[in-house]
Amino acid sequence: MYSFKNDYSEGAHPRILNALLETNMEQEEGYGGDRYSQEAARLLQQRIDCDVDIHFLSGGTQTNLTVISAFLRPHEAVIAAQTGHILVHETGAIEATGHKIISIEVQDGKLTPHDLERALDAHTDEHMVKPKLVYISNPTEIGSIYSKSELSQLSHFCQAQNLFLFVDGARLGSALTSEENDLNLADLGKLVDAFYIGGTKSGALLGEALVICNDQLKDEFRFHMKQKGALLAKGRILGIQFLELFRDDLYFDLAKHANNMAGLLRTEISEAGYPFLTHSPSNQLFPILPNELIAQLEEQYSFYIWEKVDADHSAIRLVTSWATSEDAVLSFIDDLKKGIGSLD
Amino acid sequence: MYSFKNDYSEGAHPRILNALLETNMEQEEGYGGDRYSQEAARLLQQRIDCDVDIHFLSGGTQTNLTVISAFLRPHEAVIAAQTGHILVHETGAIEATGHKIISIEVQDGKLTPHDLERALDAHTDEHMVKPKLVYISNPTEIGSIYSKSELSQLSHFCQAQNLFLFVDGARLGSALTSEENDLNLADLGKLVDAFYIGGTKSGALLGEALVICNDQLKDEFRFHMKQKGALLAKGRILGIQFLELFRDDLYFDLAKHANNMAGLLRTEISEAGYPFLTHSPSNQLFPILPNELIAQLEEQYSFYIWEKVDADHSAIRLVTSWATSEDAVLSFIDDLKKGIGSLD
Amino acid sequence: MYSFKNDYSEGAHPRILNALLETNMEQEEGYGGDRYSQEAARLLQQRIDCDVDIHFLSGGTQTNLTVISAFLRPHEAVIAAQTGHILVHETGAIEATGHKIISIEVQDGKLTPHDLERALDAHTDEHMVKPKLVYISNPTEIGSIYSKSELSQLSHFCQAQNLFLFVDGARLGSALTSEENDLNLADLGKLVDAFYIGGTKSGALLGEALVICNDQLKDEFRFHMKQKGALLAKGRILGIQFLELFRDDLYFDLAKHANNMAGLLRTEISEAGYPFLTHSPSNQLFPILPNELIAQLEEQYSFYIWEKVDADHSAIRLVTSWATSEDAVLSFIDDLKKGIGSLD
Amino acid sequence: MYSFKNDYSEGAHPRILNALLETNMEQEEGYGGDRYSQEAARLLQQRIDCDVDIHFLSGGTQTNLTVISAFLRPHEAVIAAQTGHILVHETGAIEATGHKIISIEVQDGKLTPHDLERALDAHTDEHMVKPKLVYISNPTEIGSIYSKSELSQLSHFCQAQNLFLFVDGARLGSALTSEENDLNLADLGKLVDAFYIGGTKSGALLGEALVICNDQLKDEFRFHMKQKGALLAKGRILGIQFLELFRDDLYFDLAKHANNMAGLLRTEISEAGYPFLTHSPSNQLFPILPNELIAQLEEQYSFYIWEKVDADHSAIRLVTSWATSEDAVLSFIDDLKKGIGSLD
Repeated sequence: MYSFKNDYSEGAHPRILNALLETNMEQEEGYGGDRYSQEAARLLQQRIDCDVDIHFLSGGTQTNLTVISAFLRPHEAVIAAQTGHILVHETGAIEATGHKIISIEVQDGKLTPHDLERALDAHTDEHMVKPKLVYISNPTEIGSIYSKSELSQLSHFCQAQNLFLFVDGARLGSALTSEENDLNLADLGKLVDAFYIGGTKSGALLGEALVICNDQLKDEFRFHMKQKGALLAKGRILGIQFLELFRDDLYFDLAKHANNMAGLLRTEISEAGYPFLTHSPSNQLFPILPNELIAQLEEQYSFYIWEKVDADHSAIRLVTSWATSEDAVLSFIDDLKKGIGSLD
Repeated sequence: MYSFKNDYSEGAHPRILNALLETNMEQEEGYGGDRYSQEAARLLQQRIDCDVDIHFLSGGTQTNLTVISAFLRPHEAVIAAQTGHILVHETGAIEATGHKIISIEVQDGKLTPHDLERALDAHTDEHMVKPKLVYISNPTEIGSIYSKSELSQLSHFCQAQNLFLFVDGARLGSALTSEENDLNLADLGKLVDAFYIGGTKSGALLGEALVICNDQLKDEFRFHMKQKGALLAKGRILGIQFLELFRDDLYFDLAKHANNMAGLLRTEISEAGYPFLTHSPSNQLFPILPNELIAQLEEQYSFYIWEKVDADHSAIRLVTSWATSEDAVLSFIDDLKKGIGSLD
Repeated sequence: MYSFKNDYSEGAHPRILNALLETNMEQEEGYGGDRYSQEAARLLQQRIDCDVDIHFLSGGTQTNLTVISAFLRPHEAVIAAQTGHILVHETGAIEATGHKIISIEVQDGKLTPHDLERALDAHTDEHMVKPKLVYISNPTEIGSIYSKSELSQLSHFCQAQNLFLFVDGARLGSALTSEENDLNLADLGKLVDAFYIGGTKSGALLGEALVICNDQLKDEFRFHMKQKGALLAKGRILGIQFLELFRDDLYFDLAKHANNMAGLLRTEISEAGYPFLTHSPSNQLFPILPNELIAQLEEQYSFYIWEKVDADHSAIRLVTSWATSEDAVLSFIDDLKKGIGSLD
Repeated sequence: MYSFKNDYSEGAHPRILNALLETNMEQEEGYGGDRYSQEAARLLQQRIDCDVDIHFLSGGTQTNLTVISAFLRPHEAVIAAQTGHILVHETGAIEATGHKIISIEVQDGKLTPHDLERALDAHTDEHMVKPKLVYISNPTEIGSIYSKSELSQLSHFCQAQNLFLFVDGARLGSALTSEENDLNLADLGKLVDAFYIGGTKSGALLGEALVICNDQLKDEFRFHMKQKGALLAKGRILGIQFLELFRDDLYFDLAKHANNMAGLLRTEISEAGYPFLTHSPSNQLFPILPNELIAQLEEQYSFYIWEKVDADHSAIRLVTSWATSEDAVLSFIDDLKKGIGSLD
């Protein structure tokens, strides 16, 4: 049974484990004061090429709740697409810190200035929350990505309206190395108030690198991390991993591999005549297949059945990663084609 | 410069890194559904020998805040010694989940039924919080440990008064392997409502094993973990580490080593004529030394100056760990003795 | 300028002020321990005719947030219609206590078991909140009311699914005295877990009577009130008012008057040929009028423009109350008819 | 049985009820937008004589929790004397909004710059909360009052240390009309960041006037009020009362009466040879009496037994108010003296 369920089924890229091994017995300061975390932060600052603060946290939900709770005052709210991870898949983590999330219905997982305008128009006075932070994911939860132009428009709107713009980058590597992408880390540093570079889903054991770009939001952020349980005593293990990922282009190479594997699946499934639920140029695909074929594939592969499409068809989710083997992809394609044949 | 600042200066015990390496490319379920976490939980259940639930979290503050927030209703409060970690050193993490901590002044870091009685007597009606959970640490933050008799008395009092008893075991290994200890994991399983077995300070990269003993508190605990950002996508890395620590007696062997190193320091410092601020039979020592001597030692060793005792003396904190080398301890003792000579 | 903006434009019914005057210099216990509050609670218990707990609070938002925060554990969520008051018009008061509200799109402001089923089906595991409390308003925010049959169906569904059912009764009098109503206080006591009887919008200066029917939710509720700032030192002023409202049928008489005034408006507006945005048999009406006519009426009457319907028409909201004078209603109707004439 | 238990045993001063009656049937805007609230705010601004914002809330706990939650970021904490009302007598209302209160042991209920310095020194980094708001009460919970010099020193210290200074004025009238007082409302406006003028304990049915002096804290405060359930629909009832209290000197006259009645008790009890637990020049007295005498007095008067002093003596609390009758005071003194005679 080979799994296409997600991009965190394996451990870490071997270079990362190796880096942990090599540095293992050195004594370091705790809580992120170690030399590795500091060096990793410096490397990232260079890549982003503007005066940002970098913090390393353990996971996506932790990062989202720490950031949003730190940035907002009690009456301020988040705007998110109705597919936003924080809205449904984080067990009310944001609300647990006291903040409402205003949900916006969108088709492609992405927010536009027009969507934000609707949300602002609907919140007029002190009987309602005050929208203050815009949460987007890149790639989105359904695989789509933001173009530089789209993100710039959002950015300008947010600045004009005094809204913070925050990007959940749990799978940011996959977006930035997508064939359709025209954004880079330096663009993000200029266009948004904060974003994070996901490590867990890009070859690390765990870890997300939070980048705070807006000076006004940098102050005393470590207090918030500690309060939310997000300061690891052995913070070094996050620093060491990000140092290895960004010492050269490992982070991007791993993401490209995931995208290439997704590309192979996309092309072949498409050529086999099956449509996709969403346009995804990143490492999550949502092909719509006959239920019978899905049942056959499930005997040898694990993946999520995402959504019933009609009586006979469903969309499934296939996720590739740095660890996805080309052999597994080719087998899957082969089995898919055999399965198609048997449907006749 | 050798550090006695804490027990999380190095990475992980080599066997643990090795276990991560060996299992690295296996595909596993996410969020703690992996086979390693399940096997580690089974092992711990056997050791504790009663029907407990086991959950793996990333760190101490995270565990404390998730547990307390999950166990209490909004008006209920925690009772803790004024030295309790949650009271001062977690940036208000418990209050951030809405709960007051009632602070009790104690001499030796330990709570007694008498202390709890005073707290209960002072909270009489709905104009005050309702004390509901007793938080203790074993060993305490100043190195003392609870005897079986002391813990039993607390346990009976808590049951009689309908209070939950929760043990912060960030350094539990050091308590359970102390020469003065007469408690074991199975005793804890019977006497308390929940406790955690610290991994971070006992040779793991990160990780704490939470043990919920009270049936009434087990329900839906994973929801609380997710909400607080405490469910790691690659939960396997916690399971693998605890499996390695408890597959045989590695956990206790590492703790014994730390205690032995502390014992060496204790004996020699004592014989050199210096008293200790607290009675600590575990891996944290608080010797009271002349300031001049402290200054000399600081040139080669790092440690915390804990408290000014009088104009000329201060207590320092020395912490040993699984990684503390006997050579370093012997050097320290040697330099201490040399320093004493030079003081005359 | 006469106001149909809301049902809290005037002070209190004269009998209520009189009751405050007559009892003014008597010394009473504080925080609801006074004889008036206790007597008012007894009267309400008789009316409801089952073993309920009664608490008096100051306002609707305060009641909603105290109730929901007291009833739920941190990971549990509320289900509400997307028109629900708590969802949009309470500045995130519920989220500020840590709980997500799951919004359900409905046409007539009312929830059905089918709606609840959809919400339950969408929340499957610990990565999502757990739906636990169903919030409905009667009458709803758009004037519709629940029939006994509808409420019974909701009630059975909630019991079967282990959900709490809570009724916001800010305007409960208007629902229970509506011509279309077949519910009474005793029914509510049997069918729901808690509800409140609004005083502020029914002739009191301020005050809502919370009724907790489910034994499991009664415990220590006063702690929650105190914690949320909902225990008035002079709790007597709430007790005295509810005693006066329920000593005889004043509460219902006042609500009937409001409904009668609304009935007059409904009939005449309808006969004048204008439709309504919603079917409202209670004291809030949402007629759809030509914008030109609205502009004319605004010169002499104040009311909210609720919603743009098309380029030339909008729905306005007209609210009547215990204090609405028949003369004002007749004038309004007269001016409406005159206005219609002038449109030609 | 006459009660000296507190200053909220009766209803409101007759002039206040009369004002409610006279304005009763006028239609007004809701939620504090009425002409009375606006006029009352203007009057208070004149008295305070600087550019302050005024908001009317319902009670002390509500005001404290709304203010503190609005002013602080999540990691910031309150400093309060260990006798502070928010620390023990508000059921964890402040912690429920997420903030720790740092308790300071003091003798006379008052904080000094030295006390604050100790608190600041003990909070050094991101592992601890950040002290940010200083909460004091004037008069304090044990009857003492701040002199202008004491408050000025606190004020300067707070400004130098970037701390907010907030005064709980639940009984502010009694402090400002005490014979030992040299402060006025205008001084408060200059020296503190925010304070409130208590109405509930000074002759109103309910109501506290919050005064925000610091410009930086004024923004969007009504959002916080609404979120905490502190915006009354009929906000007029607060405005009308404060307008009546400050239209002339009624507020101060009522407080003087309370102080005069306390003065009579103080003088006579003192002359009878009994000491006081605290030095209180305001309307709460804590005489230390023989238990036997207390038992006799309890047959005819109600009051709190505050604290056991020795085997035979206890301190009781006597509170006077605007409504305390001189006859009752004289009777009490008379019965006290008779009681003393009978003790021999």
